[in-house]
Amino acid sequence: MSSTNKTEIIASDKAPSIVIIREFDAPRERVFRAWTDPELYAQWVGPRSVSTKITKWSVRTGGEWAFTNIRDGEEIASFFGSFHEVRAPERVVWTFTWEGEPDGVSLETMTFEELDGGRTRITTLSVAESFEIRDQILASGMEVGVIEGYEKLDEILARSA
Amino acid sequence: MSSTNKTEIIASDKAPSIVIIREFDAPRERVFRAWTDPELYAQWVGPRSVSTKITKWSVRTGGEWAFTNIRDGEEIASFFGSFHEVRAPERVVWTFTWEGEPDGVSLETMTFEELDGGRTRITTLSVAESFEIRDQILASGMEVGVIEGYEKLDEILARSA
Repeated sequence: MSSTNKTEIIASDKAPSIVIIREFDAPRERVFRAWTDPELYAQWVGPRSVSTKITKWSVRTGGEWAFTNIRDGEEIASFFGSFHEVRAPERVVWTFTWEGEPDGVSLETMTFEELDGGRTRITTLSVAESFEIRDQILASGMEVGVIEGYEKLDEILARSA
Repeated sequence: MSSTNKTEIIASDKAPSIVIIREFDAPRERVFRAWTDPELYAQWVGPRSVSTKITKWSVRTGGEWAFTNIRDGEEIASFFGSFHEVRAPERVVWTFTWEGEPDGVSLETMTFEELDGGRTRITTLSVAESFEIRDQILASGMEVGVIEGYEKLDEILARSA
């Protein structure tokens, strides 16, 4: 695996946002498909300690999505939102709410960029409604889920290379 | 008309957001319906100089919306987004893009609050992805559209009171 495949997570001090940058050793179309195909997405998203059950997935501009995380046979967290825009193969914008905080909503923009050598960079800009909420998200253990999820995505992309 | 029915528009210096506060002389259920019934919404939204044609309107959690503004018979601007959440009669959260800036997305939360005397306050929190974009929105003439739109909403609410 390339040594540049580390997950970079940046919390801006200028805006209530989180930027996540990660490169993958696979072409953009395959990486984009892993984000949008519900069977693939459910395999890699989230930390290694949970599995994911997708309950709604209408991956198109204006569609809806929802999934549940399961640990040791128990549903431990549910999430939902809407796909503001799906612009294949370069961009997905969606809203994101964790049902444990039903009034909290983030707007997330995922940009998929082609790199040399058949590789891809995903940049996620996640905007919360206040610095307080953004900092709560950072303190929630989100980082482990992102890092481990992306490692699982590496494994999937390597499987069918 | 009550003297408190002025539109208040606040740009935070702490976050790239705009808060709009406005009170109406009508009960919450009627005000909420004017925001969610496409026939009513199209009558009041936007400045007096345009009419509005709604092309998509699936007003439910995870639904899509789109409309076009028309001036002097010409389509001058189009907008689209998704309804992240519709929680009647108190809350609507949606995403908002103006097609003239297809990469710009705002997350808007409208909260409908019952006030004494059968009146209602609507608070809109509109979060942009950067201070730069937020300031562009403020400089775009948005204010006139909001103020005149809410005046037209006063007129609709007064009609069937």
